Amino acid sequence: MGRVTVKRRVLRLREAAAAHRVDVLAAEEPLEIRLDGRPLTITMRTPGDDFDLAAGFLVSEGVVTSPEEVTAIRYCAGATADGANTYNVLDVRLAAGTSPPATSLERNFYTTSSCGVCGKASLDAVRTVAKWRVDGDPAPVTAEVIAALPDRLRAAQRVFDRTGGLHAAGLFTLGGDALCVREDVGRHNAVDKLVGWALRDGRLPLASTVLMVSGRASFELVQKAVMAGIPILAAVSAPSSLAVELAAETGLTLIGFVRGSSMNVYTGEGRVDLVPG
Amino acid sequence: MGRVTVKRRVLRLREAAAAHRVDVLAAEEPLEIRLDGRPLTITMRTPGDDFDLAAGFLVSEGVVTSPEEVTAIRYCAGATADGANTYNVLDVRLAAGTSPPATSLERNFYTTSSCGVCGKASLDAVRTVAKWRVDGDPAPVTAEVIAALPDRLRAAQRVFDRTGGLHAAGLFTLGGDALCVREDVGRHNAVDKLVGWALRDGRLPLASTVLMVSGRASFELVQKAVMAGIPILAAVSAPSSLAVELAAETGLTLIGFVRGSSMNVYTGEGRVDLVPG
Repeated sequence: MGRVTVKRRVLRLREAAAAHRVDVLAAEEPLEIRLDGRPLTITMRTPGDDFDLAAGFLVSEGVVTSPEEVTAIRYCAGATADGANTYNVLDVRLAAGTSPPATSLERNFYTTSSCGVCGKASLDAVRTVAKWRVDGDPAPVTAEVIAALPDRLRAAQRVFDRTGGLHAAGLFTLGGDALCVREDVGRHNAVDKLVGWALRDGRLPLASTVLMVSGRASFELVQKAVMAGIPILAAVSAPSSLAVELAAETGLTLIGFVRGSSMNVYTGEGRVDLVPG
Repeated sequence: MGRVTVKRRVLRLREAAAAHRVDVLAAEEPLEIRLDGRPLTITMRTPGDDFDLAAGFLVSEGVVTSPEEVTAIRYCAGATADGANTYNVLDVRLAAGTSPPATSLERNFYTTSSCGVCGKASLDAVRTVAKWRVDGDPAPVTAEVIAALPDRLRAAQRVFDRTGGLHAAGLFTLGGDALCVREDVGRHNAVDKLVGWALRDGRLPLASTVLMVSGRASFELVQKAVMAGIPILAAVSAPSSLAVELAAETGLTLIGFVRGSSMNVYTGEGRVDLVPG
């Protein structure tokens, strides 16, 4: 792609000394995702793995669950003033019989609530749409394996090393082996890229896996894990209240503040073996 | 509000010892913003300063620029099963003559591009919509003042201290005095809350101020600063490529990696006095 990073001149101050140098930035560009030709959403993302991002987004929103439901993904032909392809617009074709979302996806999740939108409605929406249940997946894991994941995720982050500016999401086996790592300026996009890779590789649902993310655990990240059938979500930082509620309701194991040998297990502690391996 | 934080039982592992304790989480709830009764957007946010959040969102999107354009903001009456007000739906009334956005706001920003959505289109959209220009604002600031802001922002974060899970945005004078600090599970929401406070207090445009944010600097954060007339944006972490491009194009000073006495000045270095005060 060549657009994952961008070089830029910067004035760098260190210890009262100032000097110009070239800095490497994480690239950010808009991506418009179309569904059968109709604009669906625009997200600001780091270019790269765009097909996976689009596919994963559709999994997260409950539109598709198997690779056969996506018959084609292609970049729209160029339309800038000079006719060049921006590689920033994707069109996804769905198989016959696969239903596109009614209107805007964001809205779609809340159509049951009128003036009473609340956390509970959000939880109900995910539970209604999810094809798989993670609460029946035993997925035993040791605290030792979880504690090792932040370093493994960090080691696999190629772009972060150069820019210091990307979120990462990594999918690991219960033994701690990396299956897939994705980076993006947006934390949700990193997870969508990973889930889209899994869809297109025929791996859904992602039973007996651990999703490790570099930042905080929000409601939407728990939602994405559940929609992909991932039983364990671990985060370097704090979870939000609604993330913990959704995890509890769906039976996902949610772990936060994974630092050194320490961590907080918020839900689903039955999967976590505390005895050092 | 009482909903800024939520208490939850957690299994805490420290040095191979495990114990249950009560953990304090940053609250996350959906907020639906309506414009003259019509649903406009839903965002996941930390409850509190909701009126400011809604007002700031409308400033960021170019819908309003003065407090008179917003005639009323109110919570919609309850509509949960038990009839309680969820305090998660706001209706904003605009003054006669103030135009609501054509359709979805997100889309609206890209209507000029057909299949060629790209970073350039995003930059153009902001430049077209912005009422104020920040490039004519001299706003001199010393590197010493900038270097002190992360600690001041951190000191003002009341909820973070209890949860470790919130983004913060602080508005400071050129001398480094805090004018307003807001926290939220979403980084964009923290800035919208701050900008909405300024709108409702009759302070826009925010000339001669510095916006300090706790995380990375994305395109959208630069956009929000420009739309509010803020000339300087400083971030603890890295900016994205499009954030730097938009800052350069609009004349905003963008500073990243503010850590100790070090920082990177990406654009608008003319405003930054390097000589220690």
